[in-house]
Amino acid sequence: MDAGLFTANNVWMMLATALVFFMHTGFAFLEIGLTRQKNTINILFKNIFIITGGLLLYYAWGFNMMYPGFEEGSSGIFGFAGFGIAAPENGMTPEYADGGYTWWTDFLFQGMFAATAATIVSGAVAERIKIGAFMIFTVIYVGLVYPIVGAWKWGGGFLDSWGFYDFAGSTLVHSVGGWAALVAIFLLGSRIGKFDENGKPKAIPGHNIPLATAGVLILWLGWFGFNGGSVLSADPELTSLVLVTTSLAAAAGGFGAFILSTILYKNLDLTMFLNGILGGLVGITAGADLMSPNEAIMIGFLAGLIIVLGVALVDKLKLDDPVGAVAVHLICGIWGTLAVGIFGAKAGGEQFMTQLYGVLIVGVFCVVCSFAILGTLKAVMGLRVSKEEEIEGLDIHEHGMDAYPDFIND
Amino acid sequence: MDAGLFTANNVWMMLATALVFFMHTGFAFLEIGLTRQKNTINILFKNIFIITGGLLLYYAWGFNMMYPGFEEGSSGIFGFAGFGIAAPENGMTPEYADGGYTWWTDFLFQGMFAATAATIVSGAVAERIKIGAFMIFTVIYVGLVYPIVGAWKWGGGFLDSWGFYDFAGSTLVHSVGGWAALVAIFLLGSRIGKFDENGKPKAIPGHNIPLATAGVLILWLGWFGFNGGSVLSADPELTSLVLVTTSLAAAAGGFGAFILSTILYKNLDLTMFLNGILGGLVGITAGADLMSPNEAIMIGFLAGLIIVLGVALVDKLKLDDPVGAVAVHLICGIWGTLAVGIFGAKAGGEQFMTQLYGVLIVGVFCVVCSFAILGTLKAVMGLRVSKEEEIEGLDIHEHGMDAYPDFIND
Amino acid sequence: MDAGLFTANNVWMMLATALVFFMHTGFAFLEIGLTRQKNTINILFKNIFIITGGLLLYYAWGFNMMYPGFEEGSSGIFGFAGFGIAAPENGMTPEYADGGYTWWTDFLFQGMFAATAATIVSGAVAERIKIGAFMIFTVIYVGLVYPIVGAWKWGGGFLDSWGFYDFAGSTLVHSVGGWAALVAIFLLGSRIGKFDENGKPKAIPGHNIPLATAGVLILWLGWFGFNGGSVLSADPELTSLVLVTTSLAAAAGGFGAFILSTILYKNLDLTMFLNGILGGLVGITAGADLMSPNEAIMIGFLAGLIIVLGVALVDKLKLDDPVGAVAVHLICGIWGTLAVGIFGAKAGGEQFMTQLYGVLIVGVFCVVCSFAILGTLKAVMGLRVSKEEEIEGLDIHEHGMDAYPDFIND
Repeated sequence: MDAGLFTANNVWMMLATALVFFMHTGFAFLEIGLTRQKNTINILFKNIFIITGGLLLYYAWGFNMMYPGFEEGSSGIFGFAGFGIAAPENGMTPEYADGGYTWWTDFLFQGMFAATAATIVSGAVAERIKIGAFMIFTVIYVGLVYPIVGAWKWGGGFLDSWGFYDFAGSTLVHSVGGWAALVAIFLLGSRIGKFDENGKPKAIPGHNIPLATAGVLILWLGWFGFNGGSVLSADPELTSLVLVTTSLAAAAGGFGAFILSTILYKNLDLTMFLNGILGGLVGITAGADLMSPNEAIMIGFLAGLIIVLGVALVDKLKLDDPVGAVAVHLICGIWGTLAVGIFGAKAGGEQFMTQLYGVLIVGVFCVVCSFAILGTLKAVMGLRVSKEEEIEGLDIHEHGMDAYPDFIND
Repeated sequence: MDAGLFTANNVWMMLATALVFFMHTGFAFLEIGLTRQKNTINILFKNIFIITGGLLLYYAWGFNMMYPGFEEGSSGIFGFAGFGIAAPENGMTPEYADGGYTWWTDFLFQGMFAATAATIVSGAVAERIKIGAFMIFTVIYVGLVYPIVGAWKWGGGFLDSWGFYDFAGSTLVHSVGGWAALVAIFLLGSRIGKFDENGKPKAIPGHNIPLATAGVLILWLGWFGFNGGSVLSADPELTSLVLVTTSLAAAAGGFGAFILSTILYKNLDLTMFLNGILGGLVGITAGADLMSPNEAIMIGFLAGLIIVLGVALVDKLKLDDPVGAVAVHLICGIWGTLAVGIFGAKAGGEQFMTQLYGVLIVGVFCVVCSFAILGTLKAVMGLRVSKEEEIEGLDIHEHGMDAYPDFIND
Repeated sequence: MDAGLFTANNVWMMLATALVFFMHTGFAFLEIGLTRQKNTINILFKNIFIITGGLLLYYAWGFNMMYPGFEEGSSGIFGFAGFGIAAPENGMTPEYADGGYTWWTDFLFQGMFAATAATIVSGAVAERIKIGAFMIFTVIYVGLVYPIVGAWKWGGGFLDSWGFYDFAGSTLVHSVGGWAALVAIFLLGSRIGKFDENGKPKAIPGHNIPLATAGVLILWLGWFGFNGGSVLSADPELTSLVLVTTSLAAAAGGFGAFILSTILYKNLDLTMFLNGILGGLVGITAGADLMSPNEAIMIGFLAGLIIVLGVALVDKLKLDDPVGAVAVHLICGIWGTLAVGIFGAKAGGEQFMTQLYGVLIVGVFCVVCSFAILGTLKAVMGLRVSKEEEIEGLDIHEHGMDAYPDFIND
């Protein structure tokens, strides 16, 4: 390949990697912004643990479980290419990204994705999970569950053979995290004070809305790399279309949630607006390369409506999800995956059914794994901090420090 | 064109787009940082509305009003290429950026610019405008006024034919926003407590200076894309010169404001330092591609001096501009546009007069439109929140929530 | 050279420049986050002064002192190519980056590095230094000391002739800043309350840990440009390897510090985790292009252990370093430089000794210069603010404003 083109491709992929890495700052801001100041250090610690630990695990074996090089005739369910990431002799990626970038870029881009699934869970379980239990869960979920599911599609496994489509991970990243979040909040129970004696939900307001807002904007920015990099080259036509569909879906998602929540609740709810943007982004992720701008706006707008209803549904089920992770990542992840069968270049009944099967199979596997891991942890060490610790805050109890000591009177 | 070169150009333009998008985080941080915590949610809501709504409007018709493809013999005042952004058959941009990037990149880069004008207004009217009125104003101003003015120069209209020069928008973006900001604060009146009974201005300190500072640094970073992307290709010599002139003007602008404000007020005023940086950035924007580094430093330094005097002038006029938007965007926007006739490759009396005419024509049009829109809104629904709401804060009244509930005792 | 390849190289270098610029936001967040709110404005003012002043100084003469074009037979200790940065006739960089990027890109990339050394000092001396003295020190240190040392290696001087290796500046940037930080905190003395009457250190908690955490993540992101850009082209194989070694060292550094601090102090210490990441980044910087991923993990992990011990050592020596700058930048800078002789492509006894000589020569020069500058300032105008000012906070005394006025009851 032409050296200029190859270099330009690789530059794009490296910068997409940087943008996906920046998403972790966005997640951190969003999660602490939407929770209480007394648990801020704890959330940040979890997030930093995920980023560093996730990358090391993915280096040690995750990458080779996710891209195992399934052989002809394999069932395409599980494979493993060995420990570490020794580059092939020519230093290039395998054939799935021929000419797009180098082996090292490939590892780092995929590695930045890997930590995302666990970060999604982190927000849902905030303010009450034992950090030791969460760290063990993260290691197993990021280290094993995420790459196994990823291999089914992106590693060339059986979902790929079936024709299942998931461009940048509505299912493979967002739902994988979302299912675990759902199981976790079911097993954990709600925070003290989230539901009153009659089971009516009460808002527990987040302590730093500017950071939450910045978090969403940083996530949107990061999605330039998340979706744009998933082209696996800098192909001008396709990468730029993906950026357009991604941004229009985000904008439409925000608008959908803004309009519906204003109608339903007679309130200009910033948090809903923000979650609508995220819903639009998750929703477009499975088919960002297949949609026209108009279709992207449709998918995003519907995702925004779904967010408002999804958040209400989670409340109805007496589940406590402080950041709305289930509505954003699980429900909109499912929506985006199914939308590939409804809109765009691949729309059709057969594709829709394949998408549905993919959603169900991944869902069953993730739910079973999450129950196995978290259920075991609950039985062995307990998942939840003591009542006293929850009321006083995890920061002082688990970390011996405050996030904003100059502003707290105690 | 060579595939490698075209791909590299398009990568640059896509990342410039990402950087301009990131400026909205910078604007949000700056605006909330320089105002009071009780109006934070309201400001963030306005900003998120602008970003999402602006992009959707620009998609629906703004782009095609701004780049209407004026025909031979047209007066070059108004044109419209139709709704939506159907790409031309070859997927390429029109001839004005031949080989620089794709049609999709073009739309998204320009779309990110569009929202900027309204965001400038948002800061000036903060803490007292009715959000409904502001949203209606935004839709009309971003949806109609901004693209019509843009078409006069960037769309190949009559200002372009005259030889008016505005590289990246000192006039077309910053002054367009700045004129509306000026009209808006005139119609709105000052915040309660801004001027004492003798008409003497009193500082109303911003509530989060770290975020304001980060906002300015993020804006500077975003200007790498704002000016660097305005080359409309990755031409190595020109893009890198533009980054150098932009950064040196920013640094010199900060220094100019720092020195003059220290002399005048005997105080090391961080806010002036920051606004000086922004003034330098706005000032260099019209001619960033025409100036030598020394000339960029001159333009930036003078912009820094202008900021200090401009802020004082706005106070003198009994206008209340919480973030200094008029001094930064309007006055330095005018300065930068005129500087094209004074410094650099195009300097000369004729060019200076053309620049001046452009400034005046755009100014008259924007002032008239702003008066028409905002005056009508004032008559019909009122622009300003009630006195009670202003004192208690817009967050609780319009949004039912606090930005930092764990830190507020009420 | 092929236009596509040259353009892609230059795009990479411009964006690396943008990322290094963004590091200044990271430094600002980290420094204010780890100190008290009453000194926030002061720290931000210092940082903004460094960025703007540093760039202007580097333009005026620093660049030409650092890249003087030593002539054949020169001692390679000092040279100067004249004031300003007039580009050579062909607009290209000198031979050391042939084909990598343009002259303008070269200046701006190096200019963004220049300010870093002074920023490192800023954190260490926070909360007690007179701002006037600090500004004078910065001008001399960034304007003279940094470029002279830089010329010894990167400008082709005598350290380069000896075979000393420092890829992206473990010594030339981080230790240069770290030595000055060490001298400065020795001359300044500790903050009131840092050591009790028995000399036992007491933690003075930072006031905004979310911003400190974001600062570290932004610094990590910036290191994509700091190290990735130090390849001086977009060479796909080498740049992507550098990003992998950099990120794995960061992750391993965090883990090393997390594990050791948890064992030693029985506490999940977020600050140590964060400083471990920075230690890993500084540690890999000298040899990021020479190491395998496994070696990068080793270097980073050991840097993480060193951080924990280094912070304890600084306390033991009764030195007061609010942000851990000496442990991070000086000690890990030395470690990273020596590691080039222990691990990777250049490992060997002779290289190790050359690295050691380089560390020592730079250390002696920086310590002597720092003592001369800061000692003179101490004698002439005093380095330290009054006791009253230190207790009440520098913000009110030097800047007449609060960082968070809505949250402070006074």
